[in-house]
Amino acid sequence: MSSRHEGSGALPYRQSRATPDQVRGRPLAGSAVAPSERVRVKRLHERGHYDAETIHPILDAMPICSVGYVFNGSPYVTPTLQWREGGHIYWHGSSASRMLEAVAEAEVCVTVTIMDGFVLARSAFHHSAKYRSVMVLGTARKITDRDEKEARLKVFVDSLFPGRWDMLRPMNAQEFKATTVMSLPLAEASAKIRTGGPKDDEEDYKLPIWAGVVPLHMQIGGPIADKLNLAGLAPPAHVTGVKLG
Amino acid sequence: MSSRHEGSGALPYRQSRATPDQVRGRPLAGSAVAPSERVRVKRLHERGHYDAETIHPILDAMPICSVGYVFNGSPYVTPTLQWREGGHIYWHGSSASRMLEAVAEAEVCVTVTIMDGFVLARSAFHHSAKYRSVMVLGTARKITDRDEKEARLKVFVDSLFPGRWDMLRPMNAQEFKATTVMSLPLAEASAKIRTGGPKDDEEDYKLPIWAGVVPLHMQIGGPIADKLNLAGLAPPAHVTGVKLG
Repeated sequence: MSSRHEGSGALPYRQSRATPDQVRGRPLAGSAVAPSERVRVKRLHERGHYDAETIHPILDAMPICSVGYVFNGSPYVTPTLQWREGGHIYWHGSSASRMLEAVAEAEVCVTVTIMDGFVLARSAFHHSAKYRSVMVLGTARKITDRDEKEARLKVFVDSLFPGRWDMLRPMNAQEFKATTVMSLPLAEASAKIRTGGPKDDEEDYKLPIWAGVVPLHMQIGGPIADKLNLAGLAPPAHVTGVKLG
Repeated sequence: MSSRHEGSGALPYRQSRATPDQVRGRPLAGSAVAPSERVRVKRLHERGHYDAETIHPILDAMPICSVGYVFNGSPYVTPTLQWREGGHIYWHGSSASRMLEAVAEAEVCVTVTIMDGFVLARSAFHHSAKYRSVMVLGTARKITDRDEKEARLKVFVDSLFPGRWDMLRPMNAQEFKATTVMSLPLAEASAKIRTGGPKDDEEDYKLPIWAGVVPLHMQIGGPIADKLNLAGLAPPAHVTGVKLG
């Protein structure tokens, strides 16, 4: 996804480090300094980034995320879709969901991972991956206000399929009640990125072993129309222009 | 990935429900019965599966996974790569990794998610996703024996790139020491799968709204050779034949 909503009053992150969170008084840390010790990238710390300019585009490029939480003392991870507005990410689900009940006003860890490729080295040890990932720690908040819920869900639908929300049959009261939206500030977040090819031990470069990168990319297929669509309905531009990764 | 190792003495899962765990006395549950209450799919329970025939191919098709764990009372999720042998999954990392220290002999939740597409309905509420996911709960065990570590890592490399392990410069003692391999039994696991197109409210089918599926697929790009490869080295078949998802 090339661009997502920046939230009301937000400055475009490409032009300034001032994010909506800064406007609201919760600054995201600069590029080199972790906002907390627990979110600091410790292993291979040169891969760690803490600035909105790095973190936001990763979140915007990949809605698929993993929500980690603790329930009865045990760890759980639930895959779902996230979207970003300004200095928060959001996800949603059924109001009857165990995950959403467990994470409301509770600590969560949300990760987004984009795998860009396998890195093949001359030794097993130096095999690696190209990736862009984000980890967000914090307390998830449940959105209960109907209008706020609607505003967030509209951005979700339109961030994936621009303009689709207004084409749909409007949500009704029962559907709003059955849908829970969670929010999480990006105040405690880090990105971890690895780019480039293999880095081998000096003496291994003389070996006749093929090394390099096998690229990975999330491919979007052509839209498959529902058989029950009314006759003559063409797929709108928003279903043929989807991009991920 | 079309096939992975079944572990020593295992029966091919396509021919029999007898898995290595059953051989070792820890049966995976049948298709309809969850092995534990906490792993049972509660929301939309008809999407839940508990049999090896369903769970194993999902794990084999997607190495990217999320490892959830509890550290100082807080949830964490770390993206990494998993591989399967028989009735266990494995993952590895640096022996200095916080995640690997935290999960040794501790409870974890590992999830694997394959997103097969977006499902676009005539109302926002009925939008959905096509996906295949697996959740595994249990206690992770650290593999300390050097030979066991080597055997597991060989399967990891060869499961992604068949035959590559034996082409590589062999791992040395220091590298084995620096590498930790974790194992997790598939005794408490479930799959959740959604296939097919949109299911709308009956009265919405008359609306002139395009509905259908936007397919997603992990695309493997052509191999990019390292500039420092020796002259004349062609990419081996195992880097041109990778499949995921």
